[in-house]
Amino acid sequence: MVHAETSTGVLQPLESIAAEAQNAGALMVVDAVTSLGGVELQVDTLGLDVVYSGSQKCLSCPPGLAPITVSERAAKVIGDRRSPVQSWYLDLSMIQRYWTQERFYHHTAPINMIYGLHEALRIISEEGLESCWQRHLANSEAFCAGLHAIGLHTLVSPANRLPSLISVKVPDGIDEAAVRRTLLTEFNIEIGGGLGELKGRIWRFGLMGHGSRERNVLLLLVALEKALQKHGWTS
Amino acid sequence: MVHAETSTGVLQPLESIAAEAQNAGALMVVDAVTSLGGVELQVDTLGLDVVYSGSQKCLSCPPGLAPITVSERAAKVIGDRRSPVQSWYLDLSMIQRYWTQERFYHHTAPINMIYGLHEALRIISEEGLESCWQRHLANSEAFCAGLHAIGLHTLVSPANRLPSLISVKVPDGIDEAAVRRTLLTEFNIEIGGGLGELKGRIWRFGLMGHGSRERNVLLLLVALEKALQKHGWTS
Repeated sequence: MVHAETSTGVLQPLESIAAEAQNAGALMVVDAVTSLGGVELQVDTLGLDVVYSGSQKCLSCPPGLAPITVSERAAKVIGDRRSPVQSWYLDLSMIQRYWTQERFYHHTAPINMIYGLHEALRIISEEGLESCWQRHLANSEAFCAGLHAIGLHTLVSPANRLPSLISVKVPDGIDEAAVRRTLLTEFNIEIGGGLGELKGRIWRFGLMGHGSRERNVLLLLVALEKALQKHGWTS
Repeated sequence: MVHAETSTGVLQPLESIAAEAQNAGALMVVDAVTSLGGVELQVDTLGLDVVYSGSQKCLSCPPGLAPITVSERAAKVIGDRRSPVQSWYLDLSMIQRYWTQERFYHHTAPINMIYGLHEALRIISEEGLESCWQRHLANSEAFCAGLHAIGLHTLVSPANRLPSLISVKVPDGIDEAAVRRTLLTEFNIEIGGGLGELKGRIWRFGLMGHGSRERNVLLLLVALEKALQKHGWTS
């Protein structure tokens, strides 16, 4: 399952689903691309078997790496496979042999990216992982409070709202693409539009990693209000 | 086929094989990992259909990218496929849609790597691609002349010798791993050992990209002679 659902801004309830997976003896694979570093994620406590993420979201590192963790249970399943893995690139059994003492060659590692990730993790470690989660939550709540104050509404209720990406309903009669263009050209702020069924109906605001900070929240609210007014909005 | 064969140090004759492929109406796929930028490679003149390389060899860029080129003929074959591509990562039909005007999302591009590659290509462009090939060839020939002068022999005859990686026969009675260790610990020079059938029988010297220069050739010859003498070699 996807932990942090970026197309809707929903933070999925890992705990209950992980417990069901455990009960059923199933392996649990979690996409934590937009949650790792920005949202509480208890890999071992919840018994998550495979969790992968990206470097370029809440870790604030350049894109190009996908950190991954594999439980002993999942490693055993991979090791016991009879059929060959169809993808060389994501053949975890070969990557496992590269990772261990054996150093069985699999690929030339993108070393500069790894130095970058190391530095990004060092910065998070310096702030403290829990503080990092708290910061994401506090800035998200401040942003949502500001949105409500100017008369806008979030798509997701607070209980399931993702702190690192907030989806906001486009008010009736507003050209959502025009608002995004104004934010980009006049304020150098790029936000996302809706996808699929939500196309044209929501905006998606990322407040993740280094970007999740008070000054950005304040600027974002002012810029958004001005852009909306420019395009005919009266709250 | 592999253009620059790094396990043996052979430069494969592309021309004749490409011509045969054309005659047979076959697509020609070339691994140019250790040749691009260091050895003449005429993609369009030879009608090569798919050529891929790495950023970290003769281009002297950090590892993490694989430049690829696809001929119109190969692009048509990919576009006409009926069966789905099994690998998301190397699904060129999706990457093609990402590359074109459509900008169909496929992956988050590793932008810092792309900046790095751009700079590496700029440096090559400044030197001139043909000059770059010439430099690789001249330094390789100088190194081989030096090897012969101290009584060592290359594995590959000059006609098929790869300029960016030179394989050298280990003299009888010499502990090849000990020589490599001495080069690494005393001179900070890392060379490769033989692989497969050539394990223990050859050394592999990389002279590629930024590393292919006169001062390295001179240092390498002196260091190699000293390391050999230390381990009991008398030429």
